[in-house]
Amino acid sequence: MAADISEQPEVYAGLIDNGMSEISAVAAAIAERRPRSIVFTARGTSDHAALYGAYLSEIRLGIPAGLASPSVVTVFDARPDWKDSLVIAVSQSGGSPDLAAVVKAARESGAMTLAITNNPNSPLAAEAEFHIDVRAGHERAVAATKTYTAELLALFLLFEGIRTGDGKLEGTETGLLSKLPELASDVLTHSTAPDLAGRYRFAERFVTTGRGYAYPTARETALKLMETSYLPSLAFSGADLLHGPLAMADPGVPVLAVVGSGPGGKAMHDVLGRLENQRADIVIVGSYDLQGQTARMATPDIDERIASMLDILPLQQLALHLALQRGENPDAPRGLKKVTETV
Amino acid sequence: MAADISEQPEVYAGLIDNGMSEISAVAAAIAERRPRSIVFTARGTSDHAALYGAYLSEIRLGIPAGLASPSVVTVFDARPDWKDSLVIAVSQSGGSPDLAAVVKAARESGAMTLAITNNPNSPLAAEAEFHIDVRAGHERAVAATKTYTAELLALFLLFEGIRTGDGKLEGTETGLLSKLPELASDVLTHSTAPDLAGRYRFAERFVTTGRGYAYPTARETALKLMETSYLPSLAFSGADLLHGPLAMADPGVPVLAVVGSGPGGKAMHDVLGRLENQRADIVIVGSYDLQGQTARMATPDIDERIASMLDILPLQQLALHLALQRGENPDAPRGLKKVTETV
Repeated sequence: MAADISEQPEVYAGLIDNGMSEISAVAAAIAERRPRSIVFTARGTSDHAALYGAYLSEIRLGIPAGLASPSVVTVFDARPDWKDSLVIAVSQSGGSPDLAAVVKAARESGAMTLAITNNPNSPLAAEAEFHIDVRAGHERAVAATKTYTAELLALFLLFEGIRTGDGKLEGTETGLLSKLPELASDVLTHSTAPDLAGRYRFAERFVTTGRGYAYPTARETALKLMETSYLPSLAFSGADLLHGPLAMADPGVPVLAVVGSGPGGKAMHDVLGRLENQRADIVIVGSYDLQGQTARMATPDIDERIASMLDILPLQQLALHLALQRGENPDAPRGLKKVTETV
Repeated sequence: MAADISEQPEVYAGLIDNGMSEISAVAAAIAERRPRSIVFTARGTSDHAALYGAYLSEIRLGIPAGLASPSVVTVFDARPDWKDSLVIAVSQSGGSPDLAAVVKAARESGAMTLAITNNPNSPLAAEAEFHIDVRAGHERAVAATKTYTAELLALFLLFEGIRTGDGKLEGTETGLLSKLPELASDVLTHSTAPDLAGRYRFAERFVTTGRGYAYPTARETALKLMETSYLPSLAFSGADLLHGPLAMADPGVPVLAVVGSGPGGKAMHDVLGRLENQRADIVIVGSYDLQGQTARMATPDIDERIASMLDILPLQQLALHLALQRGENPDAPRGLKKVTETV
């Protein structure tokens, strides 16, 4: 898992250098056919990448996006009318039968279909009309790290390519991406995650939170903590936290709050004030200090779309180091296999 | 909270008797305009009712459905193109500004809009083109119970009314509903929730799970446990549980598994086998015993669309009794108000 985590800067550089032409071609083809809506289908970690894609779709393209439950097709045998929609399946292995079944049903109903995987030879890649290879290389650990961030980057390249219409990026996005591998490397190198893992060695559970593009980061962090350290971790969007779960906040439950430098981060300030009132122990992940924080995991002051590919890095390290300090083996969590096949 | 819970059979009877004509008229008007997709927007408990509605939409109508994040509109100031869509806001109070903002943006983009609330005089009801009053009466406790199940029933009436086209129900659905109030009363009266609350008095957390129509029940149960007893509770669809969180299952974490009598329930059997392998303590909510269960909360053998309105009842009671046994006040959870205003 440590090796997978450390490879993320190279994976970013590799996908930008070698994957852009494939992704541009897919983006241009999709832009030409103007989907009316975008439907994602994914499980586990890839579901969090899909959620990031849904925010990009609605905010950057103005195209309504949602996450489809595969059970509608596989368990209830329904066939929603996905004509004029783009159905995107996201899966690192491309091996789960339920996602392939959704893509097959979507094609049959007249949808454009796209598989985003780390395995171009997978059943899912074969089933979809379009395929994007996230080129993350072999992932060793069961807990996905570099395949997750590669999925995020692939989705960013895809949606910004659809936005321009010809699959290419605008200068702003090209500029942001040119810094990404180096920023990722800096974040990993200077991370305080190992120290923080010591502080939270005896925590019994976590709450994670963020809004907008940072919400997928909160969700993915919670899953990593559960997979590697068996620590129950509850992820909430900042707003949903106020609708009930805030009651649970107390000084015994550390809160990992992803606070970006843009509108999503600003919308967290009120939430953080409420958490502070409940005397929660708050770790900020972001570029600036906030009142009431116990600690901050420093990440760059950058557009929140890009921050999603950076903020998760020290959080992956935190999950890894917590697992190690708690005597667990993060490479082989009990009860899990690398490829999960659900129907 | 106990009074709110106990009133649910009457709320069902009242909505069927007095709300049907309003709902039929809305359903017929929507059916005539044939929405291409259905987008829900909701927070907290109402978000779980919306999820139930999304399953109904895709399975019963074949119309793709998704849950929109209000932050896209309120935080990122985006305006997704919801033309030809039906946007449904679900909110017991109808008072949260973010949902009203989504409905306003949706109307402006040409969508049909519908508010489902327990307050016909709310800002949300005024903002939407159509309104359905769930007629649950005044809810005393902060934790929503009868407004949740009234929202489920309103959504059932709405979608089955859209399905027929004229807003009326088919004979099968009318037959199912005729039994609902009495079945609800039976479930509440014969519930083993108070005893089970004793068994789990010292549990430190819960996992809840279900598939299809039972997944919203699992989500809502987790929220009730968090709101009333501050018990961290993780809800997973049966399939998602296998993609990572299964690692957390161990004999120390009780699992509340909602297992229906139809396809959703059948699709849980494999998941339950895997949980049994990890020696999890499993409480089944459903109509039949399963190997490896510690206990079963009995609910009727009935269509899974209706089961959602019955299975939640003993689970609400469990949350209430756990709170009481743990010395908490379920009517006034710390840090929460009845109407949550988020932006």
